[in-house]
Amino acid sequence: MTITGELLIGRQSVRGTNGTIHGIDAATGASLDPAFGGATREQLDQACALAWQAFDPYRETTPERRADFLEAIAINILALGDTLIERCTTESGLPRARIEGERGRTVGQLRMFAAMLRQGDFLELRVDPAQPERKPLPRADLRLRHIPLGPVAVFGASNFPLAFSVAGGDTASALAAGCPVIVKAHPAHPGTSELVGRAIQQAVRDMDLPEGTFSLLCDAGLEIAQGLVADPRIKAVGFTGSRAGGMALMAIAAARSEPIPVFAEMSSVNPVLLFPHALANRAEAIGTAFADSLTLGAGQFCTNPGLVLAVTGGDLSRFTHAAAARLASLPAATMLTPGIHRAYCAGIDTLAAHPQVQTIARGQSGAGSQGQAALFATDADAFLAHEPLRHEVFGAASLVVRCRDLAEMRRVIDALEGQLTAALHLDEADHDAARSFLPALERLAGRILVNGFGTGVEVGHAMVHGGPWPATSDGRSTSVGSLAIARFLRPVCYQDMPAALLPPSLRPDSPQRQAWRLDGKLQGARG
Amino acid sequence: MTITGELLIGRQSVRGTNGTIHGIDAATGASLDPAFGGATREQLDQACALAWQAFDPYRETTPERRADFLEAIAINILALGDTLIERCTTESGLPRARIEGERGRTVGQLRMFAAMLRQGDFLELRVDPAQPERKPLPRADLRLRHIPLGPVAVFGASNFPLAFSVAGGDTASALAAGCPVIVKAHPAHPGTSELVGRAIQQAVRDMDLPEGTFSLLCDAGLEIAQGLVADPRIKAVGFTGSRAGGMALMAIAAARSEPIPVFAEMSSVNPVLLFPHALANRAEAIGTAFADSLTLGAGQFCTNPGLVLAVTGGDLSRFTHAAAARLASLPAATMLTPGIHRAYCAGIDTLAAHPQVQTIARGQSGAGSQGQAALFATDADAFLAHEPLRHEVFGAASLVVRCRDLAEMRRVIDALEGQLTAALHLDEADHDAARSFLPALERLAGRILVNGFGTGVEVGHAMVHGGPWPATSDGRSTSVGSLAIARFLRPVCYQDMPAALLPPSLRPDSPQRQAWRLDGKLQGARG
Repeated sequence: MTITGELLIGRQSVRGTNGTIHGIDAATGASLDPAFGGATREQLDQACALAWQAFDPYRETTPERRADFLEAIAINILALGDTLIERCTTESGLPRARIEGERGRTVGQLRMFAAMLRQGDFLELRVDPAQPERKPLPRADLRLRHIPLGPVAVFGASNFPLAFSVAGGDTASALAAGCPVIVKAHPAHPGTSELVGRAIQQAVRDMDLPEGTFSLLCDAGLEIAQGLVADPRIKAVGFTGSRAGGMALMAIAAARSEPIPVFAEMSSVNPVLLFPHALANRAEAIGTAFADSLTLGAGQFCTNPGLVLAVTGGDLSRFTHAAAARLASLPAATMLTPGIHRAYCAGIDTLAAHPQVQTIARGQSGAGSQGQAALFATDADAFLAHEPLRHEVFGAASLVVRCRDLAEMRRVIDALEGQLTAALHLDEADHDAARSFLPALERLAGRILVNGFGTGVEVGHAMVHGGPWPATSDGRSTSVGSLAIARFLRPVCYQDMPAALLPPSLRPDSPQRQAWRLDGKLQGARG
Repeated sequence: MTITGELLIGRQSVRGTNGTIHGIDAATGASLDPAFGGATREQLDQACALAWQAFDPYRETTPERRADFLEAIAINILALGDTLIERCTTESGLPRARIEGERGRTVGQLRMFAAMLRQGDFLELRVDPAQPERKPLPRADLRLRHIPLGPVAVFGASNFPLAFSVAGGDTASALAAGCPVIVKAHPAHPGTSELVGRAIQQAVRDMDLPEGTFSLLCDAGLEIAQGLVADPRIKAVGFTGSRAGGMALMAIAAARSEPIPVFAEMSSVNPVLLFPHALANRAEAIGTAFADSLTLGAGQFCTNPGLVLAVTGGDLSRFTHAAAARLASLPAATMLTPGIHRAYCAGIDTLAAHPQVQTIARGQSGAGSQGQAALFATDADAFLAHEPLRHEVFGAASLVVRCRDLAEMRRVIDALEGQLTAALHLDEADHDAARSFLPALERLAGRILVNGFGTGVEVGHAMVHGGPWPATSDGRSTSVGSLAIARFLRPVCYQDMPAALLPPSLRPDSPQRQAWRLDGKLQGARG
């Protein structure tokens, strides 16, 4: 498949005429062909009009048909073969094995939602049958299903050019829910975006779905992104990126005459808590594993371990020495974009220059946009006194906070903002201490993990990739895993509706109803 | 029990010293004793501090214990006997039978959530077991439960002094979820609020629950309400009231350094669609039933039928004549407060003076704060051209919009903002016409009902009392029924956590786990 630089508006491929964007070779900084045309206001309007027209028919396709559609997208993505892998590695600077793995995750996500649709219980159906004889008043027949919110605007992540971009988690969960999707392509990987967008467009065509089920727009500035969120036909937003970016979209969404939900996954430093017995018993092993997690993907993960908390002393020194030794052995890695590299270097310089922060290790230096890993240390007093030390530096940078004791470590936890993850390293003798931290960690994070690191987010049913503000804009949601579909659904109740008018899933003889609540009690599940 | 006019802060009863409020006899306008003291900033701070301290221990009480607590509240409310009924009828102007019925609903709500807690499946547990042998990477053990958001601020409704006030739906669902609650008493029924608040306070004491599980504050102005929503220890807001009030709270919540969700149920005109065959066959019966629904509770329901849509002609005239005749036979009813009565009269006057609106019926006139029902008519062109005609007039007022045909009726529907309910009156011969309206109605409203009216909201499992903006601030939620608990919960994932540290509900041998998902498949439900 050839990359043309065109927008995908419904079934059409059209050239945007509102400025141009070029992909960049992340390793060399060279501009890549072709040029991508930015969408005009008219093209945005056309995509929104098509999405709105598609909404009613698309949402009433059967779950099986949407499952077929998601699987067709997966097949089409795989069929792109090396064209996709090569363009994506070039645009992202990420190594081939990583991009192949990410393609596997992307395809797996689509198939997970397809399986969920076939299972058929995501609608959370409820039936309270009529009780005409009830005193003092009869009870009406009440039936509840969930319906999709409407067309969804998706803003992909720079750091997951496949798994959290055009056909990523937000798109897959929104399409599964029955929402048409308009993706605003990330400027860091426009070629990858077009290829994947064409895979979706082809599946829409092959499955004969409503034209506006999917569109892909490029934006040479901010106008189209802002216009998309402000458009009255858009009913929800999925976003992964910076806190500033997420907050800008939230402000636009809140200022609409009809405010809409924004599901923004924004920033997190992902505290790692090293408990004393684990540290005494395994300081070197934890330090080495930590350095590996820190540098994975050039540190460009939302769940990167950016903060380490431990009680000061010899065991902590053993940890930092092991981490430093490992970091020194790891080559610098190309970062996603020159801009991200610049921001990373600036963040590192600020930390290094801070009078109460010590630089305790650096990774190997590199050329161009390669990021040099960095490990810093400070003490809890300084960390608590200097709010900027709590900010995320996106990339392979982490800050060790030396605490006097576990009580001080707890004070540091209580000073943190909401997080995606919190990781605990502990042995059995640490259980009592760890237990006393758990309530605070539950309030702090969406995922609490033991003897591991938050990088490597499993796509499953029990995953939560979310967390209290500012990790996400809505801590009641996850953007990874099957529960992500819940973001795009709302309940509707049908009262005393004749069977002939009920949606199929709620009819008394429904074949679609595989699990439901009858008078509040779950029915039909198998053990 | 004696009403003292005190605030209830945790286990204490204390006098507020920040201005005073008096209850008003709704029928006479007379000021009622005692005076209620408004809370100071310090008293607000104290209530928030106690709620925050209570959060971790309260949320980890067993579901059974919280069920006992909710049932104890119900018993204590019933034990208030006539003291409560009399104060509540005096403050609200609502008749005794209505208040007794509302007490039944309030107690029923508490018991419904208690039963739900005992059933134990509201946590939506999920387990994806470890797969240590999986290639290329092993899978971690992932377990998900929902935890409560934190202390919740509840703002009760003037029009449901029991069922949507101190121990109403928001409080019951938040307490069931494991959230401490601080209620800001509605100034229209401070005595009722105190009585019910004491019933809750007594239950907290008898069950030996954390002190800050519940507090009740009065506010002589807006300072305490605003301060409550802005307080960093408050993590969610439940509100039922005006659009202006809800939007003010939303703005405060969004401007916090940690924005929080506001579940505001605000305004709705609840369109009633009269389809041609039903109208031809039953115009008089529908008109009479409509007038009864319109005037129920002096029209002071969120689900009051404020808008009637039908094709113009003789059948519609039969409907309006029957409605007019019925309205003329119904006495005026006392409204909740003099302020609500004044706003109602102003709304009526505006409609009556509109050059394209005809007054087609009035109810009997009354004295004092009694509201005189009013039925108006206009045509679809005028309705579409004049946006103010779409606004809610809170009280027994409704507007009939005469449409040329069903296509024009559909255009009127498409011009409406989000609604709590949409009611369809139809016969079998109307099914095809009604079916073509359903997609638009699903997008418009939280509940679609057939051959009835939205007043009389059943408290059940399949109920949705919610809807797209501006019916509510968050169309993905309901404030009535068992699904209301979902508003106050968020998912947390535990990865590779030793069984000894897992919450009881997620341990491999959990006795609490009555329904859960294993690798995404529902387990354990009975048919």
